[in-house]
Amino acid sequence: MQVYGDVNSGNCFKIKLLLSLLEIKHDWIEVDILQGETHSNDFLRKNPNGKIPTVELDDGRYLCESNAILGYFAENTDFMPTDLYQKAKVYEWLFFEQYSHEPFIAVARFIEKYLGIPKQRQDEYHSLQPGGNKALNIMEKQLSQTAYIAGDQMTIADISLYAYTHVANEGGFDLNNYPAIQRWCEKIQSNPNYISMG
Amino acid sequence: MQVYGDVNSGNCFKIKLLLSLLEIKHDWIEVDILQGETHSNDFLRKNPNGKIPTVELDDGRYLCESNAILGYFAENTDFMPTDLYQKAKVYEWLFFEQYSHEPFIAVARFIEKYLGIPKQRQDEYHSLQPGGNKALNIMEKQLSQTAYIAGDQMTIADISLYAYTHVANEGGFDLNNYPAIQRWCEKIQSNPNYISMG
Repeated sequence: MQVYGDVNSGNCFKIKLLLSLLEIKHDWIEVDILQGETHSNDFLRKNPNGKIPTVELDDGRYLCESNAILGYFAENTDFMPTDLYQKAKVYEWLFFEQYSHEPFIAVARFIEKYLGIPKQRQDEYHSLQPGGNKALNIMEKQLSQTAYIAGDQMTIADISLYAYTHVANEGGFDLNNYPAIQRWCEKIQSNPNYISMG
Repeated sequence: MQVYGDVNSGNCFKIKLLLSLLEIKHDWIEVDILQGETHSNDFLRKNPNGKIPTVELDDGRYLCESNAILGYFAENTDFMPTDLYQKAKVYEWLFFEQYSHEPFIAVARFIEKYLGIPKQRQDEYHSLQPGGNKALNIMEKQLSQTAYIAGDQMTIADISLYAYTHVANEGGFDLNNYPAIQRWCEKIQSNPNYISMG
């Protein structure tokens, strides 16, 4: 199996972390988005949306969208509940991550870490802060009530949200304001098969 | 079961359409987002993210995020494949919808239909057109190859993407440029339990 990704991208790190926790062997093919490698004709045949991560399974079939890939590998493991409602709650948080968390925190981090906050994107960078803090507040509230984001069990919803949350400081967000999130990050990091980003 | 929603919102219509196709009885509670009803303390207890649709199940538990709600009701029905890879492809399209389709097409439609394209949002409205057309092009390509978006079978990925696609003209997108999408819309509308939006 081959995973096309960027080791500094949170969306790609999600896959790397889950595969490490599940001890699933794979080849990692580093892709440079800043060099336009996701928009080559060759790459667009793998993923018409031109995004990473993209996974090529052993039978040659492709799978895209980080959270859909997490769902694929987590099925029938401890990281995905079997109860229908609990499973739907996991997906609820996965969609929250892609709609209400990533577009603020990951984009602010991209502008700061990858681009160095260029003048023409300063307004955008600052405009992303309230939305990112709103998402962190919602997580903080949940993590003050339950050990993990979708309940008592660590699921792919934690892996997905952890990816950009634990580096949110690189996008201008101060995690010192979120003690429950900090404790949750440490719990995830204490897993014996945990690997660092990058 | 109670569904909190706005009949003119595509995200809410997804739920209404699936429940109609599955003939699942429910109460519809109309919520006016322009009047701030999703940000009342009472509503935030149901969904801390202050968004619709939000579903209250018969046992009092809540479920949010339109595509997670679709997944919950579709499980063990014809609208969700049982094969793990096919199921992951359905979720791939659901995440595509929330990240690469809805933020362009639904937001442009909101600015045009709900707000009448006020002067201060004209630039934003125009900036959303390329992203929306990119999403429609990706759908057009897929629907030129398969009868439905994730293969030969109609799934919740079709229901989800149909919601804002079939009214994309209300956001400035010309569906005459997308013949495969138009045929797909007609196929969905020909379902005996189909209901219209609004």
